[in-house]
Amino acid sequence: MADSSTGVKRKYEGKEIEKHEDEGQQARSKQKVTEGKELIDSSSNESKASGKGLVFVTGNKHKLEEVNAILGGKIAVKAESIDLPEFQGEPDFISEAKCREAIKHIEGPVIVEDTCLCFNAFGGLPGPYIKWFLKKLGPAGLHKMLQGFEDKSAYALCTFAYGSGNPGNEIKLFRGKTPGTIVEPRGPIDFGWDPCFQPDDFQQTFAEMPKDIKNKISHRGKALAALSEFLIPAENGFQGFQNF
Amino acid sequence: MADSSTGVKRKYEGKEIEKHEDEGQQARSKQKVTEGKELIDSSSNESKASGKGLVFVTGNKHKLEEVNAILGGKIAVKAESIDLPEFQGEPDFISEAKCREAIKHIEGPVIVEDTCLCFNAFGGLPGPYIKWFLKKLGPAGLHKMLQGFEDKSAYALCTFAYGSGNPGNEIKLFRGKTPGTIVEPRGPIDFGWDPCFQPDDFQQTFAEMPKDIKNKISHRGKALAALSEFLIPAENGFQGFQNF
Repeated sequence: MADSSTGVKRKYEGKEIEKHEDEGQQARSKQKVTEGKELIDSSSNESKASGKGLVFVTGNKHKLEEVNAILGGKIAVKAESIDLPEFQGEPDFISEAKCREAIKHIEGPVIVEDTCLCFNAFGGLPGPYIKWFLKKLGPAGLHKMLQGFEDKSAYALCTFAYGSGNPGNEIKLFRGKTPGTIVEPRGPIDFGWDPCFQPDDFQQTFAEMPKDIKNKISHRGKALAALSEFLIPAENGFQGFQNF
Repeated sequence: MADSSTGVKRKYEGKEIEKHEDEGQQARSKQKVTEGKELIDSSSNESKASGKGLVFVTGNKHKLEEVNAILGGKIAVKAESIDLPEFQGEPDFISEAKCREAIKHIEGPVIVEDTCLCFNAFGGLPGPYIKWFLKKLGPAGLHKMLQGFEDKSAYALCTFAYGSGNPGNEIKLFRGKTPGTIVEPRGPIDFGWDPCFQPDDFQQTFAEMPKDIKNKISHRGKALAALSEFLIPAENGFQGFQNF
């Protein structure tokens, strides 16, 4: 009881977190999936995973829909809205810590998600704090923050963290990254910072482009694809959850 | 074990946090101290406080020196460097959460400190995240962040959070706030964002001014004065720690 959160932090800091970036993408993902398979503990998969399905800890319906669109049908994904503490730190640390907190509540396989908007001129910030900056400044203010800097480039980063449900097991991270530029807001203002982010090789902001195109190139789409490759190896159908 | 950190967060959110701001200052502080005295549980004070002294959870020697300069001699303040998790959120929430985490490790009265640098044009941000921004951008970069905004005003905010050691008791917050302006860095660059913060009614930045003047007008000095008034009512000498 005494030192749960701090203990978690200490443990994380000394530990190598396995990262799955989705930039290249297929070749490396497949290799990782294969590695994943070798580590499956089928008995624990059956008792934990097949019985309870995968829990996505989120209060955001939109994100649940996205996850279900990709994983649904093959895996039962159930959302639970738990008010998890959010830590400060680097994106990987925050995602892993959040997943470990989620595991304390969910007895079984669990995923959590975290999204960052990272300005290169700011060394990656606001990054994980983007939601606070968006709330206070709006998309136009985010653009204004870069007025003094020549480099307006940025990247959107989405990380899914997967825990098998066993607190002793490693947390797996699946990341999707989309490079772009911070611009004056254009397009509908109903979805976060989308109006001020224009992905590289496109003339439209995330807010202006059709949803299906955005989903294909978006940080979240890429991270979900990597998560899906891990959970559902394409050749064999659903293999059960990876127990590490 | 299951929901320590999350539980903490939930509890905080529904709870009225008592705030002690030090802007006016003496009249209100004295009133609060009087209120505090009425709530003293002397038996628990003796067992917990006098026996173990007050623990300041910090890894920062400079901050410990400042605390000892004001509280030392009257109260034994011992530093412990525990790697507490840092949460995201509003400054009051972060301070209270940090103190509750500290209480899990320290059996007795404890204080923690948190410093924010808040840009008014940013609705108070970077605020609690200032250390990450300072690390990535330096003082010159902090100033540049405001180039697109007419309002360059800011305030430095220091919060000490005091816990009696009993997790059921209220956490008391003591805040010191110093208004100023974000300027191009001037003066020695050896102490954080001091070179880019010029307090109101002064022509020097924190970095340029003599230390004794800075300590008198600084956010940390004010917060410490308020904490000291609470812990050591001036008329009567050390009264023991307040048990709430």
